[in-house]
Amino acid sequence: MKVLVINCGSSSLKYQVIDSETEHVLAKGLCERIGIDGVLTYQPAGQDKIKYEAAMPAHRQAVELVLKQLTNPENGILKSIDEIDAVGHRMVHGGEKFACSTLLTDEVLKTVESCNDLAPLHNPPTLVGVAACRELLPTTPMVGVFDTAFHQTMPPEAYIYGLPYEYYEKYAVRRYGFHGTSHKYVSLRAAEILGKKPEDLKIVVCHLGNGSSISAVDGGKCVDTSMGLTPLEGLVMGTRSGDIDPTCIEFIAHKENLSLEQVMDIINKKSGVLGISGVSSDFRDLDEAAKAGNKRADLALRVFAHSVVKYIGSFIAVMNGVDAIVFTAGIGENDDIIRSRIIEHFDYLDTTLDQKANKMHGEERIISTPDSKVKVICIPTNEELAICRDTVEIVTKKMVEDTVKDVLSNN
Amino acid sequence: MKVLVINCGSSSLKYQVIDSETEHVLAKGLCERIGIDGVLTYQPAGQDKIKYEAAMPAHRQAVELVLKQLTNPENGILKSIDEIDAVGHRMVHGGEKFACSTLLTDEVLKTVESCNDLAPLHNPPTLVGVAACRELLPTTPMVGVFDTAFHQTMPPEAYIYGLPYEYYEKYAVRRYGFHGTSHKYVSLRAAEILGKKPEDLKIVVCHLGNGSSISAVDGGKCVDTSMGLTPLEGLVMGTRSGDIDPTCIEFIAHKENLSLEQVMDIINKKSGVLGISGVSSDFRDLDEAAKAGNKRADLALRVFAHSVVKYIGSFIAVMNGVDAIVFTAGIGENDDIIRSRIIEHFDYLDTTLDQKANKMHGEERIISTPDSKVKVICIPTNEELAICRDTVEIVTKKMVEDTVKDVLSNN
Repeated sequence: MKVLVINCGSSSLKYQVIDSETEHVLAKGLCERIGIDGVLTYQPAGQDKIKYEAAMPAHRQAVELVLKQLTNPENGILKSIDEIDAVGHRMVHGGEKFACSTLLTDEVLKTVESCNDLAPLHNPPTLVGVAACRELLPTTPMVGVFDTAFHQTMPPEAYIYGLPYEYYEKYAVRRYGFHGTSHKYVSLRAAEILGKKPEDLKIVVCHLGNGSSISAVDGGKCVDTSMGLTPLEGLVMGTRSGDIDPTCIEFIAHKENLSLEQVMDIINKKSGVLGISGVSSDFRDLDEAAKAGNKRADLALRVFAHSVVKYIGSFIAVMNGVDAIVFTAGIGENDDIIRSRIIEHFDYLDTTLDQKANKMHGEERIISTPDSKVKVICIPTNEELAICRDTVEIVTKKMVEDTVKDVLSNN
Repeated sequence: MKVLVINCGSSSLKYQVIDSETEHVLAKGLCERIGIDGVLTYQPAGQDKIKYEAAMPAHRQAVELVLKQLTNPENGILKSIDEIDAVGHRMVHGGEKFACSTLLTDEVLKTVESCNDLAPLHNPPTLVGVAACRELLPTTPMVGVFDTAFHQTMPPEAYIYGLPYEYYEKYAVRRYGFHGTSHKYVSLRAAEILGKKPEDLKIVVCHLGNGSSISAVDGGKCVDTSMGLTPLEGLVMGTRSGDIDPTCIEFIAHKENLSLEQVMDIINKKSGVLGISGVSSDFRDLDEAAKAGNKRADLALRVFAHSVVKYIGSFIAVMNGVDAIVFTAGIGENDDIIRSRIIEHFDYLDTTLDQKANKMHGEERIISTPDSKVKVICIPTNEELAICRDTVEIVTKKMVEDTVKDVLSNN
């Protein structure tokens, strides 16, 4: 099956075409500056990246351009858009409605829309992207893969906040968690690498990127996670504060004479390691600045590592033990100094980093010493492949059901 | 030395007179409803509690009544107020200015006043109480014992939030931590019970009361704690939310059409286990309701235990191991079900509760089995005694210094 994977942001659209049999990426690219001017990137497998400027007043035109490019007689990888067997969409917030990936019908899309409140910045552009794809590929099945779905197995004690219960009943205020597609993919790969069944493992997954989250995966199911109602809670991130005393909001609003919305904007966009360091939200910049003697850059890195250590420790207690700690995403995969700083806090579990394996880059590998009781693993995440797999699974199931229905109605 | 220990709330004043040599409480009591009407409780050692109604328009009159009662010829324990050698005041917020207890001079009191911003509800009544005592006992030395002082040893990575650094520089926005007097007292007692030096121990102290906080005490020094800028952060409490996604504040404000101040009031006074259960902030009520089948009461207890488990786990990781987990304060000392629910998450550290010892009440004891690698201990907290000890230490030091000065100036 050829699957088009789409990930829509407010002014961007990432895409990949994956052959589900070989799991090879046939082409990938990015539409940027949608609604502003428009830039399209396109890269067929094994070839160089091509970049065009092209008008993209809205997501519909972006999808149109992607399909045109994929079928371009000169360098396209498809003869016709009919070769696309299914489209997998990354969806951000499915609320409590979606505990797994789902075929995107009119009814399902209405339900997703009812969750917009919970993710006002992320859900609407996704829905626009889905609408554009449905219009241009009206007979192709579409599947929604939710960032929140994997976390829906959390027990109530992990997702209920210490707030008046009516807010949960009336507005669904609770912990949801995000990066679920990544947490699921990475925890399953960890089990494969260890040669064990997911059911027999307790895993802490550290998805550390510009947005960061940690999950406790016990027996293949998520039992706790660091992000909450929104992706603001939990770890200190690139520009997001993560956990703070809620009173800080009121305190800053009064001191700086700011509205609640202005403080929330600062907490989301000007805080995190950027706010502490005053240097950058990018960990490579921080590493460099810290090495050059910038104390606030060094402090930002230490605060980040400290917040990761705290969450790993708390989730080990939640699961009453741990078999593996897994690092993924930009920082998790590439920053050996941060990994080292984190793992040195887990001597008490008889775990030591293999410094040589830790210093390697880019590939799946165990980075703890062979005699470590708790394994530490680096696994590059692959959300697109995970979306492709879910899409194929759901479309195949639907085809089988339809065939059975046909056969039954013909008898 | 006879030490009067004073703990002022906004409309209350708790007091004890302690003989510092024997560490016996000679008398104790409480002034309630100050500024409303006034009720005085008085209990000399070994005798019944006496309760009077007495006008207390302000803290000054409350202090006056306490001194009058202590020297009452009929049932007072002092012949004259001159027998009071020193007064120890519980102070809430010392900001970054006080890392230990301090003699309360004019200058020191001005500095405390400069921290009022950080604890607008707690610091002003304390200062009123100190002023009243100084007026009525003008020659008696007064010592301030700060709830925040013990936590001042935390390293920056534990106290710096992921917020713009200028808020720390301009307004001292950071984690402070509270219940420090209790955390210090209990961690020192734990070392004595284990027959070890504090320097050789890693201890997690769980102060679980109507307000709850957890500390990581490594080598006798606090290295992390759950409360933050204010006592709102951290564990789910009686009526306080503890940790939430900061976005909840904005979300609730919009949905319920409330001001920021109104939401903060709800988060402080109508949340926590009261908010979840809708039943009570008192754990005895919740235990009863849960046993009678109230699901939200049961959920509130589970959410509370879950939040404690997470913090214990995170602080074990922060310290890279743990020798003892200590429970104190109302819930920590008395609720064996909660303790049991918490400690069952720490099998991975080879720790098991001794169910018989766990079910006992009121006295200092180890409640883990003898072969448990990590010891679990119950220790009734005694903040008044801790305040008395600090007061004596500081007053004695001052007397020695004054004597040396006198001798030197006479030579």
